[in-house]
This record gives sequence, structure tokens and C-alpha cells, in this order.
Amino acid sequence: MLDNIRFVLINTFHPGNVGAAARAMKTMGVTQLYLVNPRNYPSPDAESRAAGALDVLQQAVIVDTFEEAIADCALVVGTSARLRSNPWPMLSAESCAKKAVDEASKQQVAIVFGRERMGLHNDELQKCNYHVSIPANPEYPVLNIASAIQIVAYEIYKYSVELTGDANPKATAGTKRTYANSKEMELFYNQLDQLLIRIGFTLPQNPGKTMLHLKRMINRARPEVKEMRMLRGIVSQLEKLSGK
Amino acid sequence: MLDNIRFVLINTFHPGNVGAAARAMKTMGVTQLYLVNPRNYPSPDAESRAAGALDVLQQAVIVDTFEEAIADCALVVGTSARLRSNPWPMLSAESCAKKAVDEASKQQVAIVFGRERMGLHNDELQKCNYHVSIPANPEYPVLNIASAIQIVAYEIYKYSVELTGDANPKATAGTKRTYANSKEMELFYNQLDQLLIRIGFTLPQNPGKTMLHLKRMINRARPEVKEMRMLRGIVSQLEKLSGK
Repeated sequence: MLDNIRFVLINTFHPGNVGAAARAMKTMGVTQLYLVNPRNYPSPDAESRAAGALDVLQQAVIVDTFEEAIADCALVVGTSARLRSNPWPMLSAESCAKKAVDEASKQQVAIVFGRERMGLHNDELQKCNYHVSIPANPEYPVLNIASAIQIVAYEIYKYSVELTGDANPKATAGTKRTYANSKEMELFYNQLDQLLIRIGFTLPQNPGKTMLHLKRMINRARPEVKEMRMLRGIVSQLEKLSGK
Repeated sequence: MLDNIRFVLINTFHPGNVGAAARAMKTMGVTQLYLVNPRNYPSPDAESRAAGALDVLQQAVIVDTFEEAIADCALVVGTSARLRSNPWPMLSAESCAKKAVDEASKQQVAIVFGRERMGLHNDELQKCNYHVSIPANPEYPVLNIASAIQIVAYEIYKYSVELTGDANPKATAGTKRTYANSKEMELFYNQLDQLLIRIGFTLPQNPGKTMLHLKRMINRARPEVKEMRMLRGIVSQLEKLSGK
């Protein structure tokens, strides 16, 4: 179901955009809205721009941190400009929609939209499995946040209709793999970080970029639940060895 | 080619929507805007919502009648709800975009958007060659006018890129990463295998599938040369610890 797909908006600046986002989502059957620490919210501006999508707004989950918003999600996709230097696997809006709908039959999926002016920060982008970039005019690729949401939601709706042949889609197709969710990944990374310090590979006072590079690589692999269990088993064994 | 495609907005009510429309268009490379008898226009609201698309707004052609706006167009497509009773040939946003771009190489094309609340009147719809309906949630198909424009413009941009191979949106194209080669991977896997045996995670006489799963996962990540160096560094450190 599209109910397993949530749109996460981080630190929205204009409450009107939150309303416009809710409306854009509902027109495409996506109704799970998460707001991370929104500015000036709630607000009559949000309500008026939401128009007939007031229910989406009222059911929105408001949290303090990005981590809370994606804790139970096994697929997290962050919106990002397409940069040559960006080493993350990139999806188009269309391929992002397909992946999201396919995986939503089994697990929670988050698509994350950044701040109006600054987008997502690097540490947020690093928590994502994929980045999505909406094809746009290279001379002015600056989509309004509700417009970006409209396009991604539209591709999701279009694909789910195509998949089910039903204008009220229930996601039936699905992948068979179950991936570790963000929270499990975070626990593993903490454990690994501690291990690297304990064995003297990194220094706590000057950790450098080791963990960053490791996270980037492991996120690319998208460990399944079973694989994550194995990785944690190995690290636990190494912890014992290192005298923990 | 996209210069031969114009978006015609009829009797807009909120000038802010005209600005948002200009921005939505420009992000997708569509810049010809025609306004038929807009209410409260020009307006600072339009300018502020246009953001970096002020040029589209300033070049907009303002006319009194719909006929003037489409006089020189050979293909006119009107936006409309999908109704069973509508006897006009219907296009989806996607097929509308294809038709518009294909025909724009030879002639002027107009895509017409109706009033915020009431859409296009029947006599206006009857002046169109085709009607276009954006796929949407049947329970709430009420797209904001700038959102509808964003989607149609997005499909136009997407198709024109596909057609010309320009600004190619293919995922991860053009990265210049250097990946570890098979030989380096093999050396690492051997080193890791030995380590897992030494720490007692696997047994040499009954190794099981641990290495198989690890290889599968790491291969999925496709480590770069630098990352591989880091992984081998970590394993070397662990080897020392394990008394090698």
C-alpha cells in the first residue's frame, strides 16, 4: 500500500509549503507526512494551502530529529541535486517511484525532502540508501518544495496504477528481500565505531573520515536483515577479542 | 524546440499562482507563458512566487481572449477532468508531452490551463484538439494549477531529454570512480576469511556460508580503490590484535 510510503520534510521554513505539500501528496494518494522540527508550525497558512488535504496535515507526525522520522524505515531516499562529485547511487524520480512502490509492499519507505533553500545536509544525505534527483532545466533547476513533492508523488501514483491496473492502488508486487532498517544500521555503526577506536584504528579525539567512508560503502550495499545480523555477530566476536 | 510550446492560463484568480506557474515552467525549460485576462495582474505576489523565473513572467504575453492566445497554434490541448461523458480524445500527461514535443518541431503548440476553481468552460474545451487529464487520486484529484503545470512541464522536459539525449538524466552517468579490481577483492576476501577463522567466527573444517554472504554483500557495494585500502587496513589491524 501507499500507506507504507512516507514523505519526510526537514525543517520547513514557510508553513504554507507544508500545506501545499500535503495537498500535492493527497492528489496522488500518498498520505503519510512526517515533519522534522518545522518552523512556525502549526499555522493557518499551512491549513489554507492544504485545501482539501487537511486530513493529511492533521495526521502528520511531528518529530524532533530526522533519525526519529526514519527509524523504522528499510528504504530511505533523499532528494539531492545531481552532482558529479556525489558518490551515492542516484535515482530519477521515475525509478525512485518504482523502487518505493515495489518495496512498500513489505516494509516502510521514506522519501526525504530538504529545507527550502539548502536542501538536505551531508549528514542527512549519508543516512539515505539512495538519492533521487528530479530531471530539470540545468539553467534553473530550482523546484519549489511542493513541486518536487508533486512530481515524486505523481510518479508513485502513475506506477502504482500501472502495476495494479487500479485507480485506487494497493501495492501487490514486491521484492522478497527485507533490508535492515535505519535504527539497526545506526546500532551497527555505533558498535563498529567503538571497535575501531578500541583497536586503535581511529582515535576518539580525531576520528577522521573512516566511519563516513564505511557508512557510505555499507549503505550502498543495503544490507539485508540476515546480513546485518551476521555483521553484528562478527563485530561482537571482535569486541570480545579486543577485551570488552 | 520547447520555444514552440506555450502554456496558456485563462482568467487566473490568484496572481501568486501565475508566479508559481512561471517558476514551474522554467524549471522544466518551458518559457512561453500566455495569460488570458488575468485577475489582479501584475502583482508583487506573482513576482515573489516566480523566484528565479521572473524573466518568464516579464516576457509573458497578456491577451484579452482565448482565441488570441491560440490563434497561431496548430495543436491545442486543454486540461480537463477525466469524465466518461467527455467525447474528446483524451491524453495522459505523458502522451500529451510526447505529442506536444513531437509537433513543436514543426508548428506552434498550446497547452491550456483553466481557472483555479472551475477549469475550462465547455466552449473553450471545444476549441482544443485534445484534452489532457493528469492521473490523480479519484478521491481528491484537485491539483493546484501550478502543480498541474509542473507535472505537464516535467513530462515535456523528460521526453525532450529522452529524444535529444541532451542533459541526459541517466542515473549515475558520468562518475569517474575507480573500483577495486577482482584481484584486489580476492586478496581482501582471503585476508578476511583467515581473520574470521582466527577469531573463531568460522571453523576451517566447516566454513559454512559466511564468506559467501559477505562477498555477495560487499560486491553489491562495489568498493572503490580507496575504500578497499581502508578495509584492508582495518583487517590488518585486527590481525595484529588476534596475534598474527
